[in-house]
Amino acid sequence: MAKRRSDTPEELVRKVVAGDRRAVARSITLVENQTEEGTELMKRLYPHVGKPMVVGITGSGGSGKSSLIDHLIRKFRKKGQRVAVVAVDPSSPFSGGALLGDRIRFQNHALDEGVYIRSMGSRGYLGGLSRTTSDVVRIMEAMGNDVVIVETLGAGQDEVDIINVAQTCLLVLTPGMGDDIQAMKAGIMEIADLIVLNKADLEGATAILRTLEATLAFGFKGGEGDWRPRVLPTVASAAKADGIQGVDELVDAIEAHHAFLHDTQAIQQVQANRVEQELGLIFKDQLEKYIFKGLKGTGKKREYVRAILDGKTDPYSVVEEVLGEFLK
Amino acid sequence: MAKRRSDTPEELVRKVVAGDRRAVARSITLVENQTEEGTELMKRLYPHVGKPMVVGITGSGGSGKSSLIDHLIRKFRKKGQRVAVVAVDPSSPFSGGALLGDRIRFQNHALDEGVYIRSMGSRGYLGGLSRTTSDVVRIMEAMGNDVVIVETLGAGQDEVDIINVAQTCLLVLTPGMGDDIQAMKAGIMEIADLIVLNKADLEGATAILRTLEATLAFGFKGGEGDWRPRVLPTVASAAKADGIQGVDELVDAIEAHHAFLHDTQAIQQVQANRVEQELGLIFKDQLEKYIFKGLKGTGKKREYVRAILDGKTDPYSVVEEVLGEFLK
Repeated sequence: MAKRRSDTPEELVRKVVAGDRRAVARSITLVENQTEEGTELMKRLYPHVGKPMVVGITGSGGSGKSSLIDHLIRKFRKKGQRVAVVAVDPSSPFSGGALLGDRIRFQNHALDEGVYIRSMGSRGYLGGLSRTTSDVVRIMEAMGNDVVIVETLGAGQDEVDIINVAQTCLLVLTPGMGDDIQAMKAGIMEIADLIVLNKADLEGATAILRTLEATLAFGFKGGEGDWRPRVLPTVASAAKADGIQGVDELVDAIEAHHAFLHDTQAIQQVQANRVEQELGLIFKDQLEKYIFKGLKGTGKKREYVRAILDGKTDPYSVVEEVLGEFLK
Repeated sequence: MAKRRSDTPEELVRKVVAGDRRAVARSITLVENQTEEGTELMKRLYPHVGKPMVVGITGSGGSGKSSLIDHLIRKFRKKGQRVAVVAVDPSSPFSGGALLGDRIRFQNHALDEGVYIRSMGSRGYLGGLSRTTSDVVRIMEAMGNDVVIVETLGAGQDEVDIINVAQTCLLVLTPGMGDDIQAMKAGIMEIADLIVLNKADLEGATAILRTLEATLAFGFKGGEGDWRPRVLPTVASAAKADGIQGVDELVDAIEAHHAFLHDTQAIQQVQANRVEQELGLIFKDQLEKYIFKGLKGTGKKREYVRAILDGKTDPYSVVEEVLGEFLK
């Protein structure tokens, strides 16, 4: 391929906003490689973000999150909406982490110009939400999608971070996996706007459904006018591509939550939280770059490690010393 | 309880090093609350760290990590060694995340003065290894344990971080969970010094054992004199407290790896990596404190968020502005 003049940031932004898939891919690469250009791009892209509905889907491996997303994509496409998926879960079929059959099925969406799927692989999973993942979600927003779906593994910090990225947060559980019990214990349910009990055709599902509903009713701390989380049973396993149940109701519920956020102006707080999280991620990222660049430049890092191992100092004192130099 | 003068850092360090369990608990609280006192304590504790054998155990939920650790504790105790467990996995029975029966069984060790178990709960799981977890492992080292076991969930960054905390890294797999396949794909196996195929009495275990061995042999990139990772079959499920298999061999293998590290002086590189990781964690932690304290103090953070939402600026430019003020 002939080498060609690369786009200026302005040109790239124009193309991304116009939905140019190659420009989007190039933008993501800039952001992933943590280049200055990537930051310049994001600054210029920022006026175009914040419009689509952002739906977070979290749940453990095997809960059928990806099959559910597969069905959601179809439903939203039938309504003529443009959909993007950002998969942070490294074991997601969208990330190429699954069985070949699943992977092919999901990647069929890639032939549809109205669907953009991006897996962050393990790169996006570097300890909770990374700045890169946050930036990629923003790019998906800017490219004119109507719905952006963010899929995370739902183990630990990820599911806490996703509340701030997503406007509507879905927690996917299944009967018999013990997830339900774990979830209630760990307070994971508190983050969900909608709880999906997937594989609701399995034995014991009805009992778990009732328990979940009771727990939700008991745990609801809001007042009148607050959103009341709901449990929705679905059957959206890979084996039942045509015999799905509950996905229409799920789409309705997602849209109802979206309408609720706008009707009550709660969306403003949601967006403020997202910006605050974003600020934190960029701060951390830039700070590390400054400090570690400084340390590497002087070759001092190895010296410090040596001195610590020799018992001449300790990591806490070293950090104070270096930070003192930088921050004075 | 009557309020009493609290220990000076020197007194606290003396007590921790003497193995005083209440002093250890108080130290962990100081570190968890991210107090200045905690940092002062860690500085003074630092000359006492680095002596015990640190074993990392990673593997997905349901692989039987905790049962395995339960058996390892018994074996090490029989040899008269003092053992500490730091459980970072929020679903670990050590973290209170499991069924009551398991929890009681594991907590029986708490009656043994030679065993110290500390769960980091979800606090330790804030996106990969946190500074708090790293500090708690150091406290466990300083209190005179012979073996420190660190248990992580093994999903994402955690299993990468654990290589640097632990001197010997165990990956626990089971037949039939698909873990083995995922592990080989994701390159997780590369981090393990020893691979444990637990529940090796399940169907298909022999075939998986052979596959794992072949994969290891194929993937071994070291030369003569390098450690050659091994696969060890065990049966250490909760139901077989007395009929365990393979745990003696596992203890032997752990001790063989420990001896290898010391014989070849590879332990020095291992300890340098640990210090480097520690430096990074403390840096990040302290930097965030400085910056966010600064922002909160001026009440500027809310102003910035407002300006971003009003489209007057963007998060990337705000970070540059604030960082410019701090770092100039």
